[in-house]
Amino acid sequence: MDILRIFKTAAVGLMAVSVLCISSCSEVPEVVEVQDFGLFPDTGADATGPVREALEYCREHNSGKLVFAPGRYDFYPDKTFEKYMFVSNHNDGLKSIAFLIEDMKDFEISAHGAEFVFHGYVSPFVIAESENIGLEGFSIDFSRTFQSEGTIVSAGNGILEVTFPEEYPFRIENRRLKFYDPEFKTEYPFGNLLEFDAVRREPAYMVRDYYIGNNLDAELIGDRTVRLKIPEIRGTKGNVMIFAPNHRHVPNIIAHNSENLRFSDITMYNSGGMGLIAQKCRDVTVERMTVTPQDGRMVSCTADATHFSNCAGNILIKDCLFENQMDDATNVHGIYMRIEEIASENTMYVRLVHHEQLGMEIFSDGDEIEFVDEMTMSTLAHGTIKSVKRLNKDITRIVFEENIPETVEVNDVIGATEFPEVELLNTICRNNRARGVLLGSRAGITVDNCFFHIGGSAIMTGGDSRYWFEQGGVTDLTVRNCTFSSCKFGGWGPAVISIDAGSSPEPETAPRFNRNVVIENNTFITTAPELLYAVSVDGLEFKGNTVTRSEDYPYVQSGKEPFVTERSENIHIEPLN
Amino acid sequence: MDILRIFKTAAVGLMAVSVLCISSCSEVPEVVEVQDFGLFPDTGADATGPVREALEYCREHNSGKLVFAPGRYDFYPDKTFEKYMFVSNHNDGLKSIAFLIEDMKDFEISAHGAEFVFHGYVSPFVIAESENIGLEGFSIDFSRTFQSEGTIVSAGNGILEVTFPEEYPFRIENRRLKFYDPEFKTEYPFGNLLEFDAVRREPAYMVRDYYIGNNLDAELIGDRTVRLKIPEIRGTKGNVMIFAPNHRHVPNIIAHNSENLRFSDITMYNSGGMGLIAQKCRDVTVERMTVTPQDGRMVSCTADATHFSNCAGNILIKDCLFENQMDDATNVHGIYMRIEEIASENTMYVRLVHHEQLGMEIFSDGDEIEFVDEMTMSTLAHGTIKSVKRLNKDITRIVFEENIPETVEVNDVIGATEFPEVELLNTICRNNRARGVLLGSRAGITVDNCFFHIGGSAIMTGGDSRYWFEQGGVTDLTVRNCTFSSCKFGGWGPAVISIDAGSSPEPETAPRFNRNVVIENNTFITTAPELLYAVSVDGLEFKGNTVTRSEDYPYVQSGKEPFVTERSENIHIEPLN
Repeated sequence: MDILRIFKTAAVGLMAVSVLCISSCSEVPEVVEVQDFGLFPDTGADATGPVREALEYCREHNSGKLVFAPGRYDFYPDKTFEKYMFVSNHNDGLKSIAFLIEDMKDFEISAHGAEFVFHGYVSPFVIAESENIGLEGFSIDFSRTFQSEGTIVSAGNGILEVTFPEEYPFRIENRRLKFYDPEFKTEYPFGNLLEFDAVRREPAYMVRDYYIGNNLDAELIGDRTVRLKIPEIRGTKGNVMIFAPNHRHVPNIIAHNSENLRFSDITMYNSGGMGLIAQKCRDVTVERMTVTPQDGRMVSCTADATHFSNCAGNILIKDCLFENQMDDATNVHGIYMRIEEIASENTMYVRLVHHEQLGMEIFSDGDEIEFVDEMTMSTLAHGTIKSVKRLNKDITRIVFEENIPETVEVNDVIGATEFPEVELLNTICRNNRARGVLLGSRAGITVDNCFFHIGGSAIMTGGDSRYWFEQGGVTDLTVRNCTFSSCKFGGWGPAVISIDAGSSPEPETAPRFNRNVVIENNTFITTAPELLYAVSVDGLEFKGNTVTRSEDYPYVQSGKEPFVTERSENIHIEPLN
Repeated sequence: MDILRIFKTAAVGLMAVSVLCISSCSEVPEVVEVQDFGLFPDTGADATGPVREALEYCREHNSGKLVFAPGRYDFYPDKTFEKYMFVSNHNDGLKSIAFLIEDMKDFEISAHGAEFVFHGYVSPFVIAESENIGLEGFSIDFSRTFQSEGTIVSAGNGILEVTFPEEYPFRIENRRLKFYDPEFKTEYPFGNLLEFDAVRREPAYMVRDYYIGNNLDAELIGDRTVRLKIPEIRGTKGNVMIFAPNHRHVPNIIAHNSENLRFSDITMYNSGGMGLIAQKCRDVTVERMTVTPQDGRMVSCTADATHFSNCAGNILIKDCLFENQMDDATNVHGIYMRIEEIASENTMYVRLVHHEQLGMEIFSDGDEIEFVDEMTMSTLAHGTIKSVKRLNKDITRIVFEENIPETVEVNDVIGATEFPEVELLNTICRNNRARGVLLGSRAGITVDNCFFHIGGSAIMTGGDSRYWFEQGGVTDLTVRNCTFSSCKFGGWGPAVISIDAGSSPEPETAPRFNRNVVIENNTFITTAPELLYAVSVDGLEFKGNTVTRSEDYPYVQSGKEPFVTERSENIHIEPLN
């Protein structure tokens, strides 16, 4: 033990010297290399401890950059950072974090295409309360994926038989199927199923979601083959059934309350949640991000590729590939809080309702907000917040500068009035479950030169005050030069482009939700008639678009119209040629 | 709505005036009444909001006392305090807290026997980072108990049939039994079973624990009767089977890193964990605490009545009744951390191992600690901590003032060297699962004038470095004037009094764990021969005790000796008369 200790002490000493030199030899922001902390690629050693020390060093010394040499780095949970986090559209929890960038400024991580492999429930990146942060040049994968993928042996009559490859360890425990890590120490529980087409490598044609929970009757009928009882199960022999996780605990990158963030040249092969979730952030750029499954798998991220909740400034997504994730390519929205109690003329208690939004801190002192009628989704009035007091993850008390308008009542909702400008450029969205992109912003949205091949709607806008409590409405939405290639081969959405107004039980007849939508110079290759569904839109132009029928999928004779508009005005739709 | 608002505003105004008056009319510490915050007993209204406002007021104004009028108060989760807590021998988690006393000094709550009823997973009391705090005069119960109790219809041949009263709502979901609150919104999951004798109202004679998890085949066979498949299940028709929770999320009182605490005249009818858990506290007095089941139930707290982890100063438990809880009446111990890695001559990483100890912050800069051999449990050496850095709930890095001794190796453990003086006086411990009291301290323990009727050992000491990692060893333990009435009618422990040395795979022959034990003037009414089991004791006197046979239970002819001593010296045992 003596010799080892002397060696280690010497190494620590050398590191200190090298670091000192870097720090004192230059006026420009210091560049730190992980090698200085004893971390080299492709060793199989746990990178978490050295990376943590390097990040702590960078934070303490205001270093400008942390650099990785190319190669593989393995991250285990033992020496992770730890932080309790409420994450929008995810489960909250005590996160075990490999890269924590907190209270930092003007800092980037550059990794020359390094492969980061995470072992267990380790959250790869958290950026919190930080400014001008860049991440670039690495891939993220997990040694054990959060989903399990099995080949369908047979499906029908309430029985599903599936064979699982060895990379998805499982056991039958008292007639219940449980997935584990290879050491059978940690469970990887599933909650819903989705069938993928083994040849097309996308959700199977007109497939449905099976939200079946974790409590199915199961029986081992072969070496790695399981028979499950699932009411109304359907599936095609040879296709792949995805057993998706019943949680969203481990998104790859959480960006919280930060600004000026750049994510470039990042590849994501898997996640236990979304790829990137940004909440209460301002100015976020995502360039050349690839979300794609590892060879041999069907699924990449187990939820959305990217997601922006109550963000502001500019959101730019450019030159990306989002494919095979288990939910949308992106979703931009605010969150409504529901009025629980009006306690005095200027004080109310508001509640976060959807369980994946609990704990979100949406409002700050001085914010302007809108009061929204829960029945019509109309903006009733605006108000200015004097003070916000968060009681707990459910309830917040808000005092307003002015009296609360008489028209505002319990169960109405309130939302922010600052929205991000959104640009989605030159990006491919394909082969994932659900929709392409969900967009909600009243500060302008541009979708330009993108390619969509999506089972549901390619572009959808919405908002509701009943279930998701996602704040919606678009202003100045332009979709141009895009290709919508054989979308709607599944059931997620009423038309290729759906401009919706949320679930309003008593909708107003005049448009009040969406304004100034332009859809021009796009190519639609269709699998069904429904091109556009537009509700509560004031001003819509559909022009210069080309529409042909898909030859790759059956054409669904739904009897529906290509264009459906409701409660809208100033609609100009160029006739189809 | 107008009139209501005006009324509420007026009420708030009045309250402010009344409070101002109290605060300005006196030099002595202010006494605050919850009525001043609009809270009156027996209304059924949610007390959580007003209590929170009152506590916030008291904290801000350094008030001396918060007073409740007698009567019933109901606490719902909406307006609770929230705090992530690591709690010794419990599950860590985000606690929803009704009474949070944090960073307070010289403060007490006095409630004149008020009944506090908690709805859902609400943690009643947390005291953190506080000094000179008293709680007195109230009872704690939950509207839905954390355990479910059913009457056994039949048991045997791998089948248990049980009928549950309506106060334990349940459903069979795909052949699995799930307990809920009355609205079926929140699950109350079970993890283990224990049979209670319906007549004696205590664990059934020679019963065993069934750790069966939450995954049993279940079937509804009557209106509220369930048939469960449980291997080797036994039970007597008419007895009560306890379905105990599979978690410890909601202890009644958590005291963390605080000192000079007094708990008086408190009655606990239920809990989702222990009654009182004190960790890293100094000087704690528990007087006239009653832990007992509500009428019609078998079980009180679902874990220990009281528990003291890494406490110091004086622990005084006096004039208490602890009965029918699902674990010991008290447990006093430290926690060992296991050496994970020796990183340099004075730096090591240590790990908390048992899952219910994760996150505990045991050591501080400047602390003296002991290094303990994991094989023999002998203290190898002592060390002084220079600095402690908690990496996460699992791993802590410790730098020592001196070099780590050469004899210390990875997998050895370290423990604190400050211990509390413990006094357990005039207290009744009976009818609970497991042991009476577990005592580990080297600063003196006195058990005087207590009554024990316990299924396992009445008094046990121990400690181990393999599973629980509870730091043990007693010095100056005196047990006198106690009655041990028909103990060991179950299997939990080798003798009525067990002075153990933990699980040491290679025990040393010389005593090194326990010192100076005196057992005098007690009365033993026995159900089996085994009175005393003593291991690794240096100095033990057993004198002036009276031993008779129990007439209430069968006498077990085990063939064992009344006194078993191993690896001990200076043992003086007075012959039995």
